[in-house]
Amino acid sequence: MDYVYAPGKNHLFVPGPVNIPEPVLRAMNRNNEDYRSPAIPAMTKTLLEDVKKIFKSTAGTTFLIPTTGTGAWESALTNTLSPGDRIVSFLIGQFSLLWIDQQQRLNFNVDVVESDWGQGANLDVLESKLASDGAHTIKAICIVHNETATGVTNDLSKVRFLLDKYKHPALLLVDGVSSICALDFRMDEWGVDVALTGSQKALSLPTGIGIICASPKALEASKTSKSVKVFFDWKDYLKFYKLGTYWPYTPSIQLLYGLRAALDLLFEEGLDNVIARHSRLGKATRLAVEAWGLKNCTQKEEWFSDTVTAVLVPSYIDSSEIVRRAWKRYNLSLGLGLNKVAGKVFRIGHLGNLNELQLLGCLAGVEMILKDVGYPVKLGSGVAAASAYLQNNIPLIPSRI
Amino acid sequence: MDYVYAPGKNHLFVPGPVNIPEPVLRAMNRNNEDYRSPAIPAMTKTLLEDVKKIFKSTAGTTFLIPTTGTGAWESALTNTLSPGDRIVSFLIGQFSLLWIDQQQRLNFNVDVVESDWGQGANLDVLESKLASDGAHTIKAICIVHNETATGVTNDLSKVRFLLDKYKHPALLLVDGVSSICALDFRMDEWGVDVALTGSQKALSLPTGIGIICASPKALEASKTSKSVKVFFDWKDYLKFYKLGTYWPYTPSIQLLYGLRAALDLLFEEGLDNVIARHSRLGKATRLAVEAWGLKNCTQKEEWFSDTVTAVLVPSYIDSSEIVRRAWKRYNLSLGLGLNKVAGKVFRIGHLGNLNELQLLGCLAGVEMILKDVGYPVKLGSGVAAASAYLQNNIPLIPSRI
Amino acid sequence: MDYVYAPGKNHLFVPGPVNIPEPVLRAMNRNNEDYRSPAIPAMTKTLLEDVKKIFKSTAGTTFLIPTTGTGAWESALTNTLSPGDRIVSFLIGQFSLLWIDQQQRLNFNVDVVESDWGQGANLDVLESKLASDGAHTIKAICIVHNETATGVTNDLSKVRFLLDKYKHPALLLVDGVSSICALDFRMDEWGVDVALTGSQKALSLPTGIGIICASPKALEASKTSKSVKVFFDWKDYLKFYKLGTYWPYTPSIQLLYGLRAALDLLFEEGLDNVIARHSRLGKATRLAVEAWGLKNCTQKEEWFSDTVTAVLVPSYIDSSEIVRRAWKRYNLSLGLGLNKVAGKVFRIGHLGNLNELQLLGCLAGVEMILKDVGYPVKLGSGVAAASAYLQNNIPLIPSRI
Amino acid sequence: MDYVYAPGKNHLFVPGPVNIPEPVLRAMNRNNEDYRSPAIPAMTKTLLEDVKKIFKSTAGTTFLIPTTGTGAWESALTNTLSPGDRIVSFLIGQFSLLWIDQQQRLNFNVDVVESDWGQGANLDVLESKLASDGAHTIKAICIVHNETATGVTNDLSKVRFLLDKYKHPALLLVDGVSSICALDFRMDEWGVDVALTGSQKALSLPTGIGIICASPKALEASKTSKSVKVFFDWKDYLKFYKLGTYWPYTPSIQLLYGLRAALDLLFEEGLDNVIARHSRLGKATRLAVEAWGLKNCTQKEEWFSDTVTAVLVPSYIDSSEIVRRAWKRYNLSLGLGLNKVAGKVFRIGHLGNLNELQLLGCLAGVEMILKDVGYPVKLGSGVAAASAYLQNNIPLIPSRI
Repeated sequence: MDYVYAPGKNHLFVPGPVNIPEPVLRAMNRNNEDYRSPAIPAMTKTLLEDVKKIFKSTAGTTFLIPTTGTGAWESALTNTLSPGDRIVSFLIGQFSLLWIDQQQRLNFNVDVVESDWGQGANLDVLESKLASDGAHTIKAICIVHNETATGVTNDLSKVRFLLDKYKHPALLLVDGVSSICALDFRMDEWGVDVALTGSQKALSLPTGIGIICASPKALEASKTSKSVKVFFDWKDYLKFYKLGTYWPYTPSIQLLYGLRAALDLLFEEGLDNVIARHSRLGKATRLAVEAWGLKNCTQKEEWFSDTVTAVLVPSYIDSSEIVRRAWKRYNLSLGLGLNKVAGKVFRIGHLGNLNELQLLGCLAGVEMILKDVGYPVKLGSGVAAASAYLQNNIPLIPSRI
Repeated sequence: MDYVYAPGKNHLFVPGPVNIPEPVLRAMNRNNEDYRSPAIPAMTKTLLEDVKKIFKSTAGTTFLIPTTGTGAWESALTNTLSPGDRIVSFLIGQFSLLWIDQQQRLNFNVDVVESDWGQGANLDVLESKLASDGAHTIKAICIVHNETATGVTNDLSKVRFLLDKYKHPALLLVDGVSSICALDFRMDEWGVDVALTGSQKALSLPTGIGIICASPKALEASKTSKSVKVFFDWKDYLKFYKLGTYWPYTPSIQLLYGLRAALDLLFEEGLDNVIARHSRLGKATRLAVEAWGLKNCTQKEEWFSDTVTAVLVPSYIDSSEIVRRAWKRYNLSLGLGLNKVAGKVFRIGHLGNLNELQLLGCLAGVEMILKDVGYPVKLGSGVAAASAYLQNNIPLIPSRI
Repeated sequence: MDYVYAPGKNHLFVPGPVNIPEPVLRAMNRNNEDYRSPAIPAMTKTLLEDVKKIFKSTAGTTFLIPTTGTGAWESALTNTLSPGDRIVSFLIGQFSLLWIDQQQRLNFNVDVVESDWGQGANLDVLESKLASDGAHTIKAICIVHNETATGVTNDLSKVRFLLDKYKHPALLLVDGVSSICALDFRMDEWGVDVALTGSQKALSLPTGIGIICASPKALEASKTSKSVKVFFDWKDYLKFYKLGTYWPYTPSIQLLYGLRAALDLLFEEGLDNVIARHSRLGKATRLAVEAWGLKNCTQKEEWFSDTVTAVLVPSYIDSSEIVRRAWKRYNLSLGLGLNKVAGKVFRIGHLGNLNELQLLGCLAGVEMILKDVGYPVKLGSGVAAASAYLQNNIPLIPSRI
Repeated sequence: MDYVYAPGKNHLFVPGPVNIPEPVLRAMNRNNEDYRSPAIPAMTKTLLEDVKKIFKSTAGTTFLIPTTGTGAWESALTNTLSPGDRIVSFLIGQFSLLWIDQQQRLNFNVDVVESDWGQGANLDVLESKLASDGAHTIKAICIVHNETATGVTNDLSKVRFLLDKYKHPALLLVDGVSSICALDFRMDEWGVDVALTGSQKALSLPTGIGIICASPKALEASKTSKSVKVFFDWKDYLKFYKLGTYWPYTPSIQLLYGLRAALDLLFEEGLDNVIARHSRLGKATRLAVEAWGLKNCTQKEEWFSDTVTAVLVPSYIDSSEIVRRAWKRYNLSLGLGLNKVAGKVFRIGHLGNLNELQLLGCLAGVEMILKDVGYPVKLGSGVAAASAYLQNNIPLIPSRI
């Protein structure tokens, strides 16, 4: 059954879930297996090791939890913090908002630092809070690396700089859902304590694994955390790691094989090449937006995101209509504007298993849709601007040289 | 990559995850999609409706949570109860033990009713507790319908009978992980308040969906529950149900299509025919065990399980060696004995997408393994006993008449 | 194993084999089956009936032969003609050349009518041959509907007109390999006697089925044909059609299910909508070529092909280098120039399961490659020209309105 | 769509097409590709080399022709012989009959040596023919290695012995359709000139590749053969081998990747281990037949086949009814009796990707069916006999030791 079949490929440009590589689809095309046989632990061991590499961590401990990003958030918070703990958390868009909502519902004392949607985390406010917190009442800083709703990337190295400057022991908890495997992310170098992502984002798998990396300091904190949890409790995982059987609950066999294949492809391409590819795709998209005469929701270049671009539309256009037409007429899936920016922005996700010609097809589609909805775009203009950049910057495919 | 490839089919007879039907594998063999397009909500609506049928419920509300059975347990408990609430819970094997452990860690006041492993829930004790609880301090009865570790099926209608007899308002929470879609389960008739299963059990999908059905009374209770939860909170689902978008978090597109296909197959076969098939497979297995001169871990016929048979081995044999040899020599996956019955039983799972000749192949394998480990079995004896029964009872395949 | 993996989708724009729709891939993802069970003949019956529709024939008899287009050619010739029979055959490109080579090697007396590569079949010469053939020495006219090497579509209705004008009984044998299911093809109306295609072309399946439709007149001719053949002999098929078992040799189970799915998708979209889609894709491609300042290998508009465009490059460019770079740098697969036009043209296949944004991605890629190889193209120009046309002409996707 | 769905696995025990290993299904689960890119020739080169190993040939030249076994027959004959050439051919069952029919229709002078169905090729008659053919009028000996209709394996080394004894230069053409990759086959050692098989037999792929190995002597003969052929002409392949592009016609991309995976699995298991596995499966089947009190269609032990067993039923039973019930009641696919032995035998195919427990499930099914149709079988007897042998002879799975 395919609800709403259309000829040709669906052009999937939402910022997740993203396109799955064919080799990964193949790897997952399999029957269930006994996860207690020697085979699955043997594979799991390689996964837990290799998955550290996408965080650029060697010191961390990884958890593959059968959940979504929301569950991964909950796991990060409840394992390291206790109810009532003070958290500094940045509200810059819909996903940071949802995380803050979760933090509050889990009974943490959330100190919200709000910015305009389209701006990054206000680190000046953070600095003043740290400066005045000699008593170390702040137990954790929670920040999204890349706010998927607005296409804003925060500078995590600055957060670390401030923590170090004030010798502040707060934990640094990072939502890397739309960044890890796509943007440069340096767990160990930046002193991140918990970082997390979801399988359906830049790793290009189906939804189903919340992927977490915890620093030694975070693991230490988990020993005294008083938050109530069972399903998300790291202790159960650590117990089974010691036993060498790895799984407190039944994992998805298909996702394990899929993750193995996804990591293999990632390492074959090279993580830094993957990041460079995302940089090209992001830059090309922004050049197209500029050529169309439209504005990026992201207000400053320092925050530009290489995984998602939120495009502001003129006030006489409803951006949701753009998304609807994309799907109804062009078999193109774009991201809606969410909450505060609903109707005002549409989003182009350019993360995961994607190449340049796919993006150019999307951009050509967006141009036609803009014309459909009455925006006076010059057809071809965005593609031309993006191509001019890409034609100079796309490398030869290493395996084909 | 296939760790540990062996020629021919793997004979998967653990009590979950189970064999996935080919049409379901096909349905899941697909790229990601935008879950916010009109297609996914349209399909989800049919899933939430149709999934009620596997619970035999019309009054219930269903939740498809991206988690495992353990998460589904947590969801059932934290949505309906508050910390400190008194629960009567039956300890009869490893999975009821794990659930009780979760109940305790979630700070409920668990009144454990223990039985020997191999016996069913002690309902006499339940009756005396209910009889003496005029104050209604018991807020919930937690019971596994089918204890997967020992192959024991409890009689839920008796539990309901007792609750009604004493006009007791306690909620009835049921783990149907290894029963629903295989054993006769009657949510509405038995007045079950929350029932749950996992996709990788009799539904014959990969792991990844915790499937929950909640009665109106359970939904009402959820409004006042004080347990802390976010990811497992039904409120978020109910909010999105009203919006018609259905998903507070990103679902697995593949599992949704897989669930659609699994339900279609289930209804094509007919749920009652599915249950009858499991009854045949269970009976045939038990006849084989008897013919081998071995004992069922389940101590009385009234508790015999049609989804899993735990076979006791003589004390001079280590049942784990049977499981190891099955895998190493015959490409057969059997279930280990767990915890108290480790080394003492091995388990044959006979649930999900399975037919009679598959089971007979497994039984023939078990006979050879028994001989391998020094048990004086008469080869062919179990197959003969099972076949004698099956040959009289297998119906023609309806689609092929 | 993937030789030469590259990130993102491969952009497949050779004129066959073409992109397979996901639902067809799913349908083929299956184990073998006994082709003598009742299931396969039941399905085959529907296939033989439904496949007539892609020929727009009701009078014809269809054959699904486990072979390629070359084998289908051989089947068409050897079943209807005898060694020494005079055939008029048109040489207009590499594929008509190969068919003529086959005709000669099969010992027919081939009367070759040659045109420049880039021109259509010379029907004036045909008319003079028919006019002077009162003795009816010409037994068959062999013509490709669409020459895949040059992108030239012949007007079959004119051939029929001439045959009728001269009341000539010659059989009309048509290679529809790169036309059927994509271009307007009218077997019965045009009095075609044998038409054929291959599964890997516009039907969008893997290679493996030679699909043939034979008119009653062709079937009659087959009774007296003296050509030696066994594997390609229609008589064996007809014998098994009568028996209701359909298959003289073992068919590919996977391709049968795939063909069923492909036909279902085709009819869901509507054959005339499929043809209109190809018309849009062809027109858009030609507008891009024009915008680039390049010439179509096809010399006159009347012969323009909606399934493949052969683009002439300036003499200072080697078109093979374009194809090589497309693959090495952009993960784009274009068609080489073959034989006489090797190095002079590259080909864009735009047939099968393809939509407009896919094509625009390809065109954007071609622009960058042209620049790579030193052609002074204005980036975006072809996409702009194609988009201007497409934005006015793409219909809403019927299933999504 | 699945015509006639039934729960659980289909038990596929026809002697082809056979069960496809999951890793091979995965390898074939892919979109089309440009077969003229560098990737496909690179892979093809490894295939042509590696496929020689299944023939145990180093001197041979291999052809992978997009056809079935019937087409492979035609290719073997028409490339090496000329019309009118005298062939000695053995008629021992339905498939040798069909080959002889083809030989006659291709206008060879066929000298048929007939045996009872159930007997092997009469080599005494061959010897007398060779002895009296000092003039070398016999140009070829055509023999099936394993007659699939009766389960008879011929001793090819004896044929070679006789040819050598009489220093006879006749070509030795062998149908290895149901033997190669399953039975011991030694192309070079036995001086076989052309051997052939089909992908859907012991190689365990879908139908679609006729696999041929030709000796240097056969290649030499092909230079002067006067048989008319185009599609099956080796010359076209040889031409493209020299060019390094390998394919005169479009190959099935999916089957090439599938063949690569199938060969990899074969070599991982080890060809001699594969042959030993078939030997075990054949022996076990025959022991079961004996235990049931039934007769093997094969009249002498020297001809027993390890890939297919044709079981004679008592005259009061219609063997077709056994096959029908197997499918309708047990989801078991058995082979029909064909032509002379229709109604008299049913066939159990035990070749390809199959293990012992699968076979025992089949045998248990056959027992129940025998009882269904009124044969007084002792249930379990065949399984017991087979198990007694297998339990002593199954090796540990090497990858799992």
